[in-house]
Amino acid sequence: MNEAGQHGKAGPLRILGIDPGLRITGFGLIEKTGNRLSYLASGCIRTDAGASLPSRLGTIHSELRTLVARHRPDQAAVEIVFVNVNPQSTLRLGQARGAAITALVVSGLEVAEYTALQVKQAVVGNGHADKVQVQHMVRRLLSLAAEPSPDAADALACAIAHAHGGQGIEQLSSRGLHVRNGRWMVAKENKR
Amino acid sequence: MNEAGQHGKAGPLRILGIDPGLRITGFGLIEKTGNRLSYLASGCIRTDAGASLPSRLGTIHSELRTLVARHRPDQAAVEIVFVNVNPQSTLRLGQARGAAITALVVSGLEVAEYTALQVKQAVVGNGHADKVQVQHMVRRLLSLAAEPSPDAADALACAIAHAHGGQGIEQLSSRGLHVRNGRWMVAKENKR
Repeated sequence: MNEAGQHGKAGPLRILGIDPGLRITGFGLIEKTGNRLSYLASGCIRTDAGASLPSRLGTIHSELRTLVARHRPDQAAVEIVFVNVNPQSTLRLGQARGAAITALVVSGLEVAEYTALQVKQAVVGNGHADKVQVQHMVRRLLSLAAEPSPDAADALACAIAHAHGGQGIEQLSSRGLHVRNGRWMVAKENKR
Repeated sequence: MNEAGQHGKAGPLRILGIDPGLRITGFGLIEKTGNRLSYLASGCIRTDAGASLPSRLGTIHSELRTLVARHRPDQAAVEIVFVNVNPQSTLRLGQARGAAITALVVSGLEVAEYTALQVKQAVVGNGHADKVQVQHMVRRLLSLAAEPSPDAADALACAIAHAHGGQGIEQLSSRGLHVRNGRWMVAKENKR
């Protein structure tokens, strides 16, 4: 076993997190070196609401392939968001997920999936945390100078959850954070 | 305007019809020469129910790309099947559609979409026709020696609908068929 252990790769491990959506697909790339996480890139792919569905799905797929070719992640993690607003929006979300996941698979990446609950549990320590808490903890865990955008925050959070084996927060012991009553506690406030 | 008219291509036009699903994705390839339709190929892509979702989506996507590379269709048509059984199955269907549609788009194909109602209207002359009627008319319109499998029949029907501009059945005047009261009528039974 080398440093990266289960991942079968020595040295830093690049993880691409994806939060798919037909209108906006968020992405976040982090690097894991031992127990340390660092931020590499994040952003979102937007599609033109006036374009045809096939064209929009093609944009998500092609831009993700370009992103993978540019940043060469080792693994990918996709969030399973399941908001049952109505059947049409569920179908739209499914199509965007299909377009995104196939881009990762055909690029040769292993793709892990995490529910929103698992992601929040891993990042905030509370499966029912709100968006603001997720943004806050992503900023803290990756030592970002500012809060990430909501789209990118969910994707980064998914990558963080994967970095910790999707097994929750016990492994996240660096950065002066610990868990109490199922919630993250900051042991000592970092001054910036 | 050349023979193929709206399609902007002289000579035969190859149309690939797709009926996407996570478990089974049907495909049907036809050729349109002037007003004449002929059958080229059909079948289905099956995914292993025991495999991970990303792997299954990857199979649909990759096998469709292989199919397109082998048969070189000029255009593609995908059926919009919308069976709202439950949100999970709607999400699954959406993901399969996303995997299939992106395979067509990144292969450089224009992708048209038709609702099941449009397809049935174009092929059977009745938007509420049942599966058996669709199979029967697909067999007749393409002069097949036997009924196509149900999976392939829907995909072939979608290709036929596209061949006729998705505009219904008025243009389908060959093969001794005509329309009466919104239904296809066979003017003279073909003996085989």
